[in-house]
Amino acid sequence: MNLKKKIRNIPDFPQKGIIFRDIAPLLEDKEALQDMARKLAEKFRGQKIDKVVGIDARGFILAGILADRLGAGMVMVRKKGKLPSKTESEEFDLEYGKAVLEIHKDSIQPGEKVLLVDDVLATGGTMAAAAKLVERLKGKIIGVAFLIILDYLPGRERLKDYNLFSLVSYQK
Amino acid sequence: MNLKKKIRNIPDFPQKGIIFRDIAPLLEDKEALQDMARKLAEKFRGQKIDKVVGIDARGFILAGILADRLGAGMVMVRKKGKLPSKTESEEFDLEYGKAVLEIHKDSIQPGEKVLLVDDVLATGGTMAAAAKLVERLKGKIIGVAFLIILDYLPGRERLKDYNLFSLVSYQK
Repeated sequence: MNLKKKIRNIPDFPQKGIIFRDIAPLLEDKEALQDMARKLAEKFRGQKIDKVVGIDARGFILAGILADRLGAGMVMVRKKGKLPSKTESEEFDLEYGKAVLEIHKDSIQPGEKVLLVDDVLATGGTMAAAAKLVERLKGKIIGVAFLIILDYLPGRERLKDYNLFSLVSYQK
Repeated sequence: MNLKKKIRNIPDFPQKGIIFRDIAPLLEDKEALQDMARKLAEKFRGQKIDKVVGIDARGFILAGILADRLGAGMVMVRKKGKLPSKTESEEFDLEYGKAVLEIHKDSIQPGEKVLLVDDVLATGGTMAAAAKLVERLKGKIIGVAFLIILDYLPGRERLKDYNLFSLVSYQK
């Protein structure tokens, strides 16, 4: 199935000049959801992933599905103040200002094999911060998976130390 | 498996006097995640669910897993301003002030069979608003599932018109 056809392009969201890639129609289509889940899981099956880390909020959808399909645990990376127990935190740059991501300190054991997942790779700032959090917990990053990579933005370069995978890419 | 044992109780989060029921340790435990997913899916298998609606953000984890296991589509209900296309919106009361939830207008077709999912049922305000959104799109609500019901709060009473299901409940 051509999953790209299920992604909706929304001009000028969330701000003028940005084309938002909306995965909602893909998720709402049961065949597309199955196809996406199967293709993502196939890529990492056999790699003995211990934990699938999802980034708040849409990354949670993919991480839950992948953890379930791979027989792994699922770990949340969230914006500051959302996780209730002891956390590690990492600041990163947004276009305007900064944001902080957190992970529970006890969510990953040293040496565990970790797959990081989010819906879209744009500039890579969020995922780079999430990867740092996993490394601070001494997790071993096996792969970083996205549904979509925006190849006209510098995310791939920024995450070049990792094994990147995506199902759909946009060149412009 | 006793899933309640995998839930962490955190006193005074997010504010004094509240015991936060933290599902993170359950999600992080691969056997517990499988057990949870199997039990939730078993309950609704055979009911021909078309769409599983998840509430931002932890509800997305459960909704993704359930949609995948049931062969359904997955629909996001999000806080105001997060969904990029045309939405229906519903205001609801928080302890202090109000909040607004949104759903994409085209995410559910009239007559589709819908399962709503979130992690915890507390006062029920959020889920009641999500259910109204589904009904406004003429979806048929088959069930409302939670990982946890807090039975010392009025959520069950507030959602009494729906077929409620949960894996874990707390009486106090």
